[in-house]
Amino acid sequence: MAQSQPKQHAPYLSSYQPSTTVHHEWRTASNSAAHLLPTLEEKARQNPSLTLLDVGAGSGTITASLAPYMPQGKIIATDISNDILQRAKQHAEEVGVGEMVETQEGNVYALPFMNGDFDVVHASMVLAHLDDPLKAVGEMIRVAKKPGGVVAMRESDLRAWSIHPEYSGLTNFNKVLCAVHMANGATVNAGAQLVSWALAQGVRRERITATAGTWCYSTPEERQMWGGTMADRCKNGSVRTKAIETRVATESDFKEMADAWERWIESEDGWFGSMHGEVLVEL
Amino acid sequence: MAQSQPKQHAPYLSSYQPSTTVHHEWRTASNSAAHLLPTLEEKARQNPSLTLLDVGAGSGTITASLAPYMPQGKIIATDISNDILQRAKQHAEEVGVGEMVETQEGNVYALPFMNGDFDVVHASMVLAHLDDPLKAVGEMIRVAKKPGGVVAMRESDLRAWSIHPEYSGLTNFNKVLCAVHMANGATVNAGAQLVSWALAQGVRRERITATAGTWCYSTPEERQMWGGTMADRCKNGSVRTKAIETRVATESDFKEMADAWERWIESEDGWFGSMHGEVLVEL
Repeated sequence: MAQSQPKQHAPYLSSYQPSTTVHHEWRTASNSAAHLLPTLEEKARQNPSLTLLDVGAGSGTITASLAPYMPQGKIIATDISNDILQRAKQHAEEVGVGEMVETQEGNVYALPFMNGDFDVVHASMVLAHLDDPLKAVGEMIRVAKKPGGVVAMRESDLRAWSIHPEYSGLTNFNKVLCAVHMANGATVNAGAQLVSWALAQGVRRERITATAGTWCYSTPEERQMWGGTMADRCKNGSVRTKAIETRVATESDFKEMADAWERWIESEDGWFGSMHGEVLVEL
Repeated sequence: MAQSQPKQHAPYLSSYQPSTTVHHEWRTASNSAAHLLPTLEEKARQNPSLTLLDVGAGSGTITASLAPYMPQGKIIATDISNDILQRAKQHAEEVGVGEMVETQEGNVYALPFMNGDFDVVHASMVLAHLDDPLKAVGEMIRVAKKPGGVVAMRESDLRAWSIHPEYSGLTNFNKVLCAVHMANGATVNAGAQLVSWALAQGVRRERITATAGTWCYSTPEERQMWGGTMADRCKNGSVRTKAIETRVATESDFKEMADAWERWIESEDGWFGSMHGEVLVEL
């Protein structure tokens, strides 16, 4: 059922290395898809056998945590990587929602589903990584039911980070991350552009509800999780490889950035906030 | 009951001009103090005659909208400006909570109250404007009940704005706003520093709950409200006066910035997000 073969697109920059998946697996419906939850619950009340497509589901922790909001429904998790979908399936089984969650490998530019197949189509932190996010938004809208379907998207603005203490290695890391994203054809402020992408795909403005969400880390456990993930990315991540390859930063810069994240983990007054744009499209 | 006279501090930069109060009066407990509300309701259940001090209450729309969460309680709104407190009192009467809200002129560096006078002490978008925010945090803690009192603070990080479309006049306005704030001795990233200020005033980390909040504007009405306020500040605000005086920007720059905000108001795909740090201290 796939449409015409897509052109060659840039690879997923963040990759599924352990340094990235630690934070991926911290993500849940409540910290990463809160804007969808009231609508999801309401729709599940009206139609218990609701279907949801989770696009770019990755290791599937958001996918699995959406399940309790639609307990008699059906979720399909799709991703470009079949390996990570195995993990998503395993995770769903571990948390007791394995029967509700199916996985299907698929390309977001040519989703392997029919027009209008799903009541709800969801993506969180996916579009920012694509070099043609508009096309992906069009695909998400295509496979959502009309009328009555919902498309929910959430993406960050990488430049809207707020950090204390502002060790120079942390602000440098943010600059390098943005530069590498841009060099990779990705969108640094995807969250701010979600409304424009929905409009460009023909959605009327009054069908769009736009809000903002955040991730915020400050307790010792949160600092360890986030700072540890960021330090690992400085030591081993694909951002490091790409930045060194394109001379955006040196090995010594990454040493300083990793040290700064480790110092931040140890800073009792450490605080981190990142801002995300959220959009619900009611078709 | 005031303590020793404070040293001369910088004036409140934003001022209470119409251009600023339009947005001030849009603020409510739900869009500007949400992090306090569950705790406030719980405390009001335990102790119906709860007392709350709203510090830097301004025109009092947040003050008045806190009242329904503590219906048998008592709120005192304090501010450096007695004129604006008259407006706060009038607003409280207009929305039917006049009996619950008293006003008292006061300096945040020397609050005219006794140690431990209040169950809850609240400030929203106040500390960022001060040249000695740490001292103000100390005063808020001083007048909160111990043990059992709560101090709630919310402040923005002015650098963590996310805007689409990114007209150059908008990004320039943000830079000018930050520069003028810094020149005035204010704090551009107060929201990120709230945890550090509470710690510096002797609060133990485990007594602090830190979160992030946002303001987000994208509907035509929201764009008119926010963009209109910003365009007015470019034409008449004290930020304009100060920036021109200190040669941070010219009249022609402000013309471009005002035009950009007006163009943004008309942009159907317009989106704005700003991020705030929030802290609840349980004493």
